[in-house]
Amino acid sequence: MNYQSAGLFIIGTELTRGVIADKHCQLLANQLTRLGYHVERMVVVPDDGSIDTVLRQAIGRCDLIILTGGLGPTSDDLTRSVVARLASVPLVRDRESFEALHRRIGERIWGANEQQTMIPEGFIAIPNPNGTASGFRGVIEIEGREVAIIALPGPPREMDPMFFDEVLPYLARLAGHDEFNRSEYSTFLIPEAKLEELCREASCNGLQWGTRFQDMTISLYLVGGSEAERTEMADRLRSMVGPALIADGEVTAATLLTEHLLERKETISTAESCTGGMAAVQLTELSGSSQWFWGSVVSYANEAKTSLLGVKEETIAAKGAVSEACAIEMAEGMLLHSGSTWAVSITGIAGPEGGSREKPVGTVCFGFAGRGRTSEAVTVHLSNYGRSSVRRKATTVALLLARQFIDGCCLLDTVSKWQYI
Amino acid sequence: MNYQSAGLFIIGTELTRGVIADKHCQLLANQLTRLGYHVERMVVVPDDGSIDTVLRQAIGRCDLIILTGGLGPTSDDLTRSVVARLASVPLVRDRESFEALHRRIGERIWGANEQQTMIPEGFIAIPNPNGTASGFRGVIEIEGREVAIIALPGPPREMDPMFFDEVLPYLARLAGHDEFNRSEYSTFLIPEAKLEELCREASCNGLQWGTRFQDMTISLYLVGGSEAERTEMADRLRSMVGPALIADGEVTAATLLTEHLLERKETISTAESCTGGMAAVQLTELSGSSQWFWGSVVSYANEAKTSLLGVKEETIAAKGAVSEACAIEMAEGMLLHSGSTWAVSITGIAGPEGGSREKPVGTVCFGFAGRGRTSEAVTVHLSNYGRSSVRRKATTVALLLARQFIDGCCLLDTVSKWQYI
Repeated sequence: MNYQSAGLFIIGTELTRGVIADKHCQLLANQLTRLGYHVERMVVVPDDGSIDTVLRQAIGRCDLIILTGGLGPTSDDLTRSVVARLASVPLVRDRESFEALHRRIGERIWGANEQQTMIPEGFIAIPNPNGTASGFRGVIEIEGREVAIIALPGPPREMDPMFFDEVLPYLARLAGHDEFNRSEYSTFLIPEAKLEELCREASCNGLQWGTRFQDMTISLYLVGGSEAERTEMADRLRSMVGPALIADGEVTAATLLTEHLLERKETISTAESCTGGMAAVQLTELSGSSQWFWGSVVSYANEAKTSLLGVKEETIAAKGAVSEACAIEMAEGMLLHSGSTWAVSITGIAGPEGGSREKPVGTVCFGFAGRGRTSEAVTVHLSNYGRSSVRRKATTVALLLARQFIDGCCLLDTVSKWQYI
Repeated sequence: MNYQSAGLFIIGTELTRGVIADKHCQLLANQLTRLGYHVERMVVVPDDGSIDTVLRQAIGRCDLIILTGGLGPTSDDLTRSVVARLASVPLVRDRESFEALHRRIGERIWGANEQQTMIPEGFIAIPNPNGTASGFRGVIEIEGREVAIIALPGPPREMDPMFFDEVLPYLARLAGHDEFNRSEYSTFLIPEAKLEELCREASCNGLQWGTRFQDMTISLYLVGGSEAERTEMADRLRSMVGPALIADGEVTAATLLTEHLLERKETISTAESCTGGMAAVQLTELSGSSQWFWGSVVSYANEAKTSLLGVKEETIAAKGAVSEACAIEMAEGMLLHSGSTWAVSITGIAGPEGGSREKPVGTVCFGFAGRGRTSEAVTVHLSNYGRSSVRRKATTVALLLARQFIDGCCLLDTVSKWQYI
């Protein structure tokens, strides 16, 4: 028997009334997925008996059913009788549960608490070290199919240890040798629809993929096949968009840069105009930032560029504040005024106003300067999905290109492959 | 027709794999419950088409069905066709959605994006100001019963405003509330549980309330009663936490400040340490920022404080970089080096490292300087819910207090009421 398809059933009126947020679904789904289960549905219902209906609707589709809640001593205690009915067995007293509860609450066990020691006949009790209701597990046959059923109490401080200590090892055994193979990547600046298209083009040998939006990246999961096949698909993707836009593992553009700086024991400063300090914010997100970050000047007004960074008024007059010449002077000015090893500058048109035919919204110039290194600048034309998006993308570009600059890569080569961003 | 029983259907493989936690169920269930709906089930399924099955299983039990997710441009876009099949109507192009998307992304609309402008025939499109996929709503007849169906995109930053602005008033009408009276407020720095407690305390005459997490604020909706009654409740809340933490309407701490500056035709600069430029980022979020924002110095390293802002080395040696003396010198230095009317500084301990018994993590000093005004500084002790939270809260405090300083309010009085932040 292969237990592959799982359903999660969460019982709690405080959940369906939105009083509290469910905490079990993500935890259970995450753990089951790692074991190779496919979570087919997660259902939350009130304490009103509707669990019976939704459970019957899922039977025949799920090999594994996990229920939480509805085991308490109150009148809405339903789970044990619903499962017993489904299994066509009576409820019987579990002696160990009874003894454990008696040790815990003494003679108060008689009355409402007593039923907490009952489990469907043939099931195995799961002890609850942090509460009065035991859980239980068992395998029943329904319509010729084996279904494993596990019931646990609702409060997370009771459910969580029971799940990790008792249920997870049991599920791992149940799932047998089933291994769940996947590789995770972080992608930058590639729009979701484009990434999907690229994956369709790059996929072969039945490899699947999934994406997950993060704050500034989209995580890409390649699923199935061997590790070599997944690496091959990632390499094909990289050859389409350039290597800088797809990184191994779960990383951000900022950590890619800061880990590099940390290794080299070097620091960076930023001089920002249209991004208003976003690069500085990202470079200071982790404790210990002073190891790699020196400081920043947000030179939003042109006067700030000249007075704080020493950009020449003539440069702004002749080339404009959004120009490679201005970007270079900003980066070099920042380097000069700072004690950092490297400086990166960002000046562009974030919109919605301020664009022109020559320099439409999304035009951003980046400058890079380093001690003993020739400064460089590049211009990138970002798709205009709105001011916030242009600013966020420009920040990501600056962080990715700063790393390339430090490594001595040709920045023009790098950006020439970025048709999609 | 009474629409009383509701079902929520959330589509997202990243949810059933436990990669991320669902954010919609609690929000939707909470709001629906307040309107008198009974949420009968909340179901989360992967992007694999199983929405069709679970939806059909719920029809006949739910008068109202809300779906989120599965509207994107990728291959797993399912919701629109499942609903069209259920309603037995074809998908048709919604002209307004098409035009809106065309304005947004131009010719890139052709291809995968185009299908985002299709909705089931007879349905009404729900515009999506923050993304490419429109939602839609309609009423269909199934087995002689009317069922209202509403489909919304999955990302919370798209779904939330669509729900509150378009869907909630519609549902209120559907639920038979002749009038949907509500007032909206923005609250700052008050933790959710505390806000809930305060509302319980301040509520009377059956006034209900709802909250919605925004990026840096919690929106508070007071629902029911007359406008005078809602204003009275808001005033009671303000008397508990001080007026600066509750503003009318949907505003941010940044817009409260920038609109004020715009009226006065004045500008501000920031000198930031622990916030790493967050205040600058927020002050430049809108186009036209140069009207109120001059620039910023992110003086993360102590050397940056002395060399870029002229903070005295003795001040740092004697009082520390996190001190009111240093905050004042940062603000005054920023004012001196800039052409702006006002300067605000932020220096604090964002953690997780760097705290001490005297200055624990969450200790933040703020300095304020203005031309012809005596500079001021205050220290605020923020609850330590992690580095990111401390940085975000410190930014909000700086923006709120800057407005108070400009208005000549007593900053010490203001912060003395902030027991909750």
